[in-house]
Amino acid sequence: MPNDTAPTTDARTPATTTTRADGRRTDELRPVRITRGWLDSAEGSVLVEFGGTRVLCAASFTEGVPRWKKGSGEGWVTAEYAMLPRATSTRSDRESVKGRVGGRTHEISRLVGRSLRAVVDVKALGENTIVLDCDVLQADGGTRTAAITGAYVALADAVAWGQRSGLIKPTLVPAGTPVLTDSVSAVSVGIIDGTPMLDLPYVEDVRAETDMNVVVTGSGTFVEVQGTAEHAPFDRAELDTLLDLAVAGNATLAQLQRAALAAEPQGHR
Amino acid sequence: MPNDTAPTTDARTPATTTTRADGRRTDELRPVRITRGWLDSAEGSVLVEFGGTRVLCAASFTEGVPRWKKGSGEGWVTAEYAMLPRATSTRSDRESVKGRVGGRTHEISRLVGRSLRAVVDVKALGENTIVLDCDVLQADGGTRTAAITGAYVALADAVAWGQRSGLIKPTLVPAGTPVLTDSVSAVSVGIIDGTPMLDLPYVEDVRAETDMNVVVTGSGTFVEVQGTAEHAPFDRAELDTLLDLAVAGNATLAQLQRAALAAEPQGHR
Amino acid sequence: MPNDTAPTTDARTPATTTTRADGRRTDELRPVRITRGWLDSAEGSVLVEFGGTRVLCAASFTEGVPRWKKGSGEGWVTAEYAMLPRATSTRSDRESVKGRVGGRTHEISRLVGRSLRAVVDVKALGENTIVLDCDVLQADGGTRTAAITGAYVALADAVAWGQRSGLIKPTLVPAGTPVLTDSVSAVSVGIIDGTPMLDLPYVEDVRAETDMNVVVTGSGTFVEVQGTAEHAPFDRAELDTLLDLAVAGNATLAQLQRAALAAEPQGHR
Amino acid sequence: MPNDTAPTTDARTPATTTTRADGRRTDELRPVRITRGWLDSAEGSVLVEFGGTRVLCAASFTEGVPRWKKGSGEGWVTAEYAMLPRATSTRSDRESVKGRVGGRTHEISRLVGRSLRAVVDVKALGENTIVLDCDVLQADGGTRTAAITGAYVALADAVAWGQRSGLIKPTLVPAGTPVLTDSVSAVSVGIIDGTPMLDLPYVEDVRAETDMNVVVTGSGTFVEVQGTAEHAPFDRAELDTLLDLAVAGNATLAQLQRAALAAEPQGHR
Amino acid sequence: MPNDTAPTTDARTPATTTTRADGRRTDELRPVRITRGWLDSAEGSVLVEFGGTRVLCAASFTEGVPRWKKGSGEGWVTAEYAMLPRATSTRSDRESVKGRVGGRTHEISRLVGRSLRAVVDVKALGENTIVLDCDVLQADGGTRTAAITGAYVALADAVAWGQRSGLIKPTLVPAGTPVLTDSVSAVSVGIIDGTPMLDLPYVEDVRAETDMNVVVTGSGTFVEVQGTAEHAPFDRAELDTLLDLAVAGNATLAQLQRAALAAEPQGHR
Amino acid sequence: MPNDTAPTTDARTPATTTTRADGRRTDELRPVRITRGWLDSAEGSVLVEFGGTRVLCAASFTEGVPRWKKGSGEGWVTAEYAMLPRATSTRSDRESVKGRVGGRTHEISRLVGRSLRAVVDVKALGENTIVLDCDVLQADGGTRTAAITGAYVALADAVAWGQRSGLIKPTLVPAGTPVLTDSVSAVSVGIIDGTPMLDLPYVEDVRAETDMNVVVTGSGTFVEVQGTAEHAPFDRAELDTLLDLAVAGNATLAQLQRAALAAEPQGHR
Repeated sequence: MPNDTAPTTDARTPATTTTRADGRRTDELRPVRITRGWLDSAEGSVLVEFGGTRVLCAASFTEGVPRWKKGSGEGWVTAEYAMLPRATSTRSDRESVKGRVGGRTHEISRLVGRSLRAVVDVKALGENTIVLDCDVLQADGGTRTAAITGAYVALADAVAWGQRSGLIKPTLVPAGTPVLTDSVSAVSVGIIDGTPMLDLPYVEDVRAETDMNVVVTGSGTFVEVQGTAEHAPFDRAELDTLLDLAVAGNATLAQLQRAALAAEPQGHR
Repeated sequence: MPNDTAPTTDARTPATTTTRADGRRTDELRPVRITRGWLDSAEGSVLVEFGGTRVLCAASFTEGVPRWKKGSGEGWVTAEYAMLPRATSTRSDRESVKGRVGGRTHEISRLVGRSLRAVVDVKALGENTIVLDCDVLQADGGTRTAAITGAYVALADAVAWGQRSGLIKPTLVPAGTPVLTDSVSAVSVGIIDGTPMLDLPYVEDVRAETDMNVVVTGSGTFVEVQGTAEHAPFDRAELDTLLDLAVAGNATLAQLQRAALAAEPQGHR
Repeated sequence: MPNDTAPTTDARTPATTTTRADGRRTDELRPVRITRGWLDSAEGSVLVEFGGTRVLCAASFTEGVPRWKKGSGEGWVTAEYAMLPRATSTRSDRESVKGRVGGRTHEISRLVGRSLRAVVDVKALGENTIVLDCDVLQADGGTRTAAITGAYVALADAVAWGQRSGLIKPTLVPAGTPVLTDSVSAVSVGIIDGTPMLDLPYVEDVRAETDMNVVVTGSGTFVEVQGTAEHAPFDRAELDTLLDLAVAGNATLAQLQRAALAAEPQGHR
Repeated sequence: MPNDTAPTTDARTPATTTTRADGRRTDELRPVRITRGWLDSAEGSVLVEFGGTRVLCAASFTEGVPRWKKGSGEGWVTAEYAMLPRATSTRSDRESVKGRVGGRTHEISRLVGRSLRAVVDVKALGENTIVLDCDVLQADGGTRTAAITGAYVALADAVAWGQRSGLIKPTLVPAGTPVLTDSVSAVSVGIIDGTPMLDLPYVEDVRAETDMNVVVTGSGTFVEVQGTAEHAPFDRAELDTLLDLAVAGNATLAQLQRAALAAEPQGHR
Repeated sequence: MPNDTAPTTDARTPATTTTRADGRRTDELRPVRITRGWLDSAEGSVLVEFGGTRVLCAASFTEGVPRWKKGSGEGWVTAEYAMLPRATSTRSDRESVKGRVGGRTHEISRLVGRSLRAVVDVKALGENTIVLDCDVLQADGGTRTAAITGAYVALADAVAWGQRSGLIKPTLVPAGTPVLTDSVSAVSVGIIDGTPMLDLPYVEDVRAETDMNVVVTGSGTFVEVQGTAEHAPFDRAELDTLLDLAVAGNATLAQLQRAALAAEPQGHR
Repeated sequence: MPNDTAPTTDARTPATTTTRADGRRTDELRPVRITRGWLDSAEGSVLVEFGGTRVLCAASFTEGVPRWKKGSGEGWVTAEYAMLPRATSTRSDRESVKGRVGGRTHEISRLVGRSLRAVVDVKALGENTIVLDCDVLQADGGTRTAAITGAYVALADAVAWGQRSGLIKPTLVPAGTPVLTDSVSAVSVGIIDGTPMLDLPYVEDVRAETDMNVVVTGSGTFVEVQGTAEHAPFDRAELDTLLDLAVAGNATLAQLQRAALAAEPQGHR
């Protein structure tokens, strides 16, 4: 974890109209921290925190691609998401012990992978594979959006590592073609007691009538919109407000990602 | 399968500006057929067809609820989605043989279940369980949206069966409270070569830059919006057009569901 | 499903001495329908019906053979049998969800595969593989015998497809050597209240003292005889009567298979 | 293993017309040994040998029945068959390591269980369960028939144990009603080079055109007939000859079972 | 992670004869840090570090015991050990994805559980369960010994939590009987190039001829001794030296555990 | 099983101070029998008995090595341990049926493999693999130590078989370099009621305060020491006594192994 004086990326907009249990405005993110280089040997690694949610994102760079991409000249980026058993307030059984990966885990792993691939030029990556492991150490809502946001930074570090080490040698595009076409981040939005709000912690998430995860690029276009009416269907006006909140929240996250990548990695502690 | 003279629900809007391989307009559904009572013993069963996509939806009504709902006075509705190995143009391995349910299957099963529960008053259902099995016999794009659309009709039949047989005896609300608060249907939309289109068959689906599944109630509110940029992020204007197409398509589907439920079940053949 | 006027194969011998709940004579088959081409893209596909039992048989033709047959010059034919969860009068759990294929499923898959291989000249097939998927959509007794009977027809269509497409190029026998050396079909027989009967529906099957499945070639020789004393051991005389019934029933089925293959495929609807 | 002077049951009919690799007549069993009490603590245990085939059959008696039989007043008998990895001439992978029980194992387990239940009066057993574990220590053909033949003897010992210990207290029939209504044994028959033969070792089994396993009671009625044309369909005359051979072979096995149960258990060594 | 001024437990004995790559003496531990309260909601949680090895130990306290201990008056303590995929220098596949827990994982989980139970008075715990999850975030040798050492501290916190909350109500011993009869810690020792050494990091571990893990109580008695000759058998004199090193190392660890428990929890950051 | 006059290896030291239920001295082994050639086709096979514990050890020799050793010039030796369901006094469920290998099984399989590899010169073996299957037919304590002791003898026979058949052709060392550098055996020791004892049967094992398995080479050096305080931590003096007992016991076992290998194989019976 960085010392407070270390160049950690920490975002909290000053509150004006407080309406939430934790004192935030409805359009305000929780404190966000992005600690790069948390692991010693991974090609990219980030401990990302959205309030009490902590996700360790590790990027593993390997030469070669899965069999079904061999000889294509293109690389591959994929992700796996998981939660430690005591990340939550009561303990859950391990999926390894149950012998199968649950539906929710599968679904989020696929979402994280898709979101990252949306900003990767696989031709520029060449026949290399980057796996992003997103392990939730502590869960307080928004774990999948924190995972995407942190994983992008770890991915950027792994791409830089691949370039420094000379392993990225594209054959279909000129050498030096940027591998990452944009940045990507994600945030949750939801309607609680009729009020649209940004970045829900667990206590808000369970009460939300509608819950939406929105993945947006650094240039503000949509990569994924997943809205679910948990307790009550929502109308077009509500949908529009939620999208506005999410786009603004992601703009802040993109700025924090840029700042984190511009600073020195802090490493563990 | 119904004879052509049987009261099957079959929708094809007359084409004006043909722009697609199958001659449809961009805002036109494929021919939709909803054949009720396809199975002899299920409490509700529907063979639903969106063009070449055929999904058999079977509703199983059982008294009692899973352990974690016992004594709550509330019922439970859930769904399982699966595909026959040769539903697709090349054969896929069976998930039973592989020994695990894949991520996509899990994800769609959860989506179908959530979509149906959005229109169910679990208090009015009382402590009963309805399981919707949606098995894709032939896949030509839009299997999950066909599944939701057909499953709603099978669910309505199973609820009617439960009422006729006297098993629906709610304790938290007056007897006779409607179990279904609305209808629900779903349709896919996507952007192909920059053009937003409704109800994508497989050939369009693989080429779509963006793919979205939209679940809407009979009264036009959203239950689920799942948009994914497969090849290129999309902007707010594109998102708005896709939502418009989906809302209109679902309005037609809702009408076809009502018509199917108003007619006599056709049964198999 | 074919219209009644379509060239469907439908067999019901006129009844003389009615002794059964459904009005059949003891030596009479249930109505049998064989609908070819039920799927659009499979190399062979049949919806076969023995009364209320409906099995969808899909044949998938692929070039090449499993590793252990590579270079042998011989092809391979195998089968997988499964049941939809609501094929039966009460719902069963999915084997994919349970994470393992049950003993009964395994056993029947192996039986269907063996039965078909008995009429296949693997040298004449060349190094190609045909997989037969037999999925029970509705079960009313005799699902394995219907599966074998329908799968043979789907197999014949897949072989014809392989010949038309030029993929069948045997190296060990002259080109044009017939791949199918005979036809094959199957039927169940059993003893109910001391009376031997042909083709048992579910209500008879559960009451049978003895249950036998008999697989016979078009020329009347035995491929498989599986008799089980469910409630009472049987003597040689009973065994002989059961075999007589089964041989006669299979002769009718072989005739229906020939008729189906001689007619035009009806396709779905 | 018993000393030769111990009351082991050892059967070899004097040869007249030798036609087989091991010098046996076509209607002759291999040497059969039934060693009771091979395990110290099982309620019944038998090491059964058919020539080089050795199967350890252990009967475990427990009070109570599976949940679905509770309160029925009836007992339950079931079996599990398995093979040690090096029972065969080349090593096979363990099913525990593969994480699933194979189709053949499942199928034989079910066959052994059904065969034994055919001679058990579950009402007379009362609410007790007997599990027969049949583990093949060395396989040289006919493992399933040896398993059935040995398991019957182990079952008889476990029933006697249950009676001695007072745990068999039937409620639906008078105390003392025999639990075993008959004995049961099994033997394989097959056609090799056109000649029907009894009790095939591995070298004959792999060459057999037709292979049949026949389970017969002590009084000579059929419990199970499973005939398979491995390489060539068989006609009615061949079937009749095979059944004759099997009935005679089982008569000898029934005699050996009776002799084994009449003698003192030999135990291990 | 604690600030440097926070009461972190950090041990490094001054080096005299440097013989190792990291400059340590052969009898010197790596820097050890024990950070209590790393998780917000677990009843006990510790991030323990032995040099580059980091293990997150979470203790979950729940009322009640597994079925097989119900009504015994005794509690239960168990542990699960696992490694994140990129804890190591190259990525490993997830056990949840492989669908089974590996042998090494199983073995270490059992070791950690046994080690902790050696200092727990289950009667004094009453019918409560404490599960210790030890997840390796970064692995640099000695993960199982770090896990045991950290898990003891988390366990102590969970026991204190149970006492404060009044859930520990023993029935077999007087209230207030200490639940923990002693402390417990563990350390690895090994022989590298003939020299016995304490607390091996990964680079030493892979080269060790002999590797031993020794679990010792705070009062210096042995709980577990697991020595393995990886490359060369060891003699009694070598064994004695290794045991001496381990006992001394554990004495230091016990002191660090006491210091950590005496200070305030530092929490995350 | 050998006749008593056959050259079976049977060890029982005359008792002086009897202190145990079975009349043995505290430093006395149970009767040990090593029957070579128990299986007809395995390259090495031994039925080993430590009192009532009976383990069948089969060595399977195959040319080639696992992928990760290909081209290394080195061979591979591994082991799998398992227990028949009724090896124990009450029946256990099969691991194949449960679909996963338990922690204890994994742990012992790994221990047996490591112990054998400690005396194998993999260079001298050349690129060949030997798998040792150790299946417990009857368990009465000490199954893992009996397995190691018997497996060594089966391994020696498989190595001899490989040499006779000319398959052992080392490339990194001169032909004829001994593959086995020493023998290896194992025995359990434990403290019961404060008294250290050798070779514990089940009744002693469950009561032991401390239980230790010690694997020793023929020349008296340690391969593995695994001591566990089951009920009370042990001090250094106790540890020393246990090691003395184990070393002496293993010396006797090594002698019995030599005697068994010097005699003719007895085979089954």
